[in-house]
Amino acid sequence: MDCSQHLKSRMVFFVSDSTGITAHTLGHSLLSQFDHLTFEYRIFSNINTVETAQKAIGEINHCAAILENRPLIFVTITDAKVRHIISKAHGMVMDLLGTFIEPLELELQMPSSHAVGRSHNTKVLNYNKRINAINFATQHDDGASTAHYEEADVILIGASRCGKTPTSMFLAVQFGVAAANFPITDDDILDMQLPESIRNFREKLFGLTIRPERLAKIRQERRPNSRYASLIQCETEVQKIEVLYKRLNIPFADTTTKSVEEISALVLQHIKWDWR
Amino acid sequence: MDCSQHLKSRMVFFVSDSTGITAHTLGHSLLSQFDHLTFEYRIFSNINTVETAQKAIGEINHCAAILENRPLIFVTITDAKVRHIISKAHGMVMDLLGTFIEPLELELQMPSSHAVGRSHNTKVLNYNKRINAINFATQHDDGASTAHYEEADVILIGASRCGKTPTSMFLAVQFGVAAANFPITDDDILDMQLPESIRNFREKLFGLTIRPERLAKIRQERRPNSRYASLIQCETEVQKIEVLYKRLNIPFADTTTKSVEEISALVLQHIKWDWR
Repeated sequence: MDCSQHLKSRMVFFVSDSTGITAHTLGHSLLSQFDHLTFEYRIFSNINTVETAQKAIGEINHCAAILENRPLIFVTITDAKVRHIISKAHGMVMDLLGTFIEPLELELQMPSSHAVGRSHNTKVLNYNKRINAINFATQHDDGASTAHYEEADVILIGASRCGKTPTSMFLAVQFGVAAANFPITDDDILDMQLPESIRNFREKLFGLTIRPERLAKIRQERRPNSRYASLIQCETEVQKIEVLYKRLNIPFADTTTKSVEEISALVLQHIKWDWR
Repeated sequence: MDCSQHLKSRMVFFVSDSTGITAHTLGHSLLSQFDHLTFEYRIFSNINTVETAQKAIGEINHCAAILENRPLIFVTITDAKVRHIISKAHGMVMDLLGTFIEPLELELQMPSSHAVGRSHNTKVLNYNKRINAINFATQHDDGASTAHYEEADVILIGASRCGKTPTSMFLAVQFGVAAANFPITDDDILDMQLPESIRNFREKLFGLTIRPERLAKIRQERRPNSRYASLIQCETEVQKIEVLYKRLNIPFADTTTKSVEEISALVLQHIKWDWR
């Protein structure tokens, strides 16, 4: 690794026994509070053995030796032995798991298992569930397939480009929710009833809506100057779809000012998702 | 909220100004080290105002009053004022951000901004990038569309069911990587060359491979007793695809014993992903 280009900015290392996403998310939240500084990020993922830890620490210390400021090191490693090695790195080590283990041992009045993979069975179970959910969401995107709707945890419905796809994928990847999504089209609006393929799954439906101005702007990017992207078309669709939701008592949320995270949180709440 | 059903098990609250995913991930890692205990989880997401914090603390304290053991409370809240309110909850509060803010202020020799959304611009930028990446990955799943490959950050290739879709979606949702994926089929193998649609994007290709026994098992679930799922078919495909990768110098990874997180980490490394 070449650190010599970053002599002036602060080096930040994320060291994780998995991908480093959690370390990165937390570290990034913390450092965004120091917004006059520039940081250079490096990730060490899959650091779960003494050997990989020693290799990582070698690279970190090599950098530390030539940098003006000592590096910041965010660590999420479950194994105590591996964590201990990283704790000796030449820098400011923030141990995001280790910091809380001792207080928890005191609180729960028992020693922790200090071992990677103790929750192995649950992990494998959750892991397979998540992979299946991602495959499910992909296969059932935008009404592409309506088979196996009985296996869906939720079916998101709404106008084209109101946020169904990102929300389904987010729910699947982050939580293992088998989320299908189905578009409500002009024909459905004309009939003012649900399309046949979702009619029998009323209790699984969650509607999305959006302000017409915003929808027109999004559609404009996709098909400029089309009828599809016109404000009048968007207004009609959104208004009628909302009437449909209300008439059929379908729970729904407005995505206009909400992030995918926030919409997903609402969906999880609605389906009473089990966070285990 | 009804806590009276959980008098014996330990209640765990995740309180976050966003979805609570990070709090949940870290908290879950920590608690999985105490594997003889049972925990009951509840999430409070979008706690980013004094009002929502007071409402959350009201519910937590209500539970705490009737429980045998005090609840565990994992907190990821950027705003100092909101965080302070939650810190007074009746339970063991583990402040996953606040714990590190003061040491960081000392290290960096400046006060933190203590404000939500300071990194707002970057956040909006990253957010849109992520949404676009999710849409891109969905539209470009399994060779469905080969348009706009010039915008792809990476194109995953490989045999059917070797892990392309989950990896693409994970890369898009977690990192905002515009990841397309394209299947290598029998025809391509017969010709022993890349299909035309990806031939011009050699530098974007990343191959996946998998042990034939594992592939056969996965395919067996999808189409039992088909030629497609037979061990001999899987062996031929995998062997020839690996020869193709090697002949054309396409970087590749074996997904057999790797998690989606691990495969994604390899892809990110290969494309030299900028973690900013």
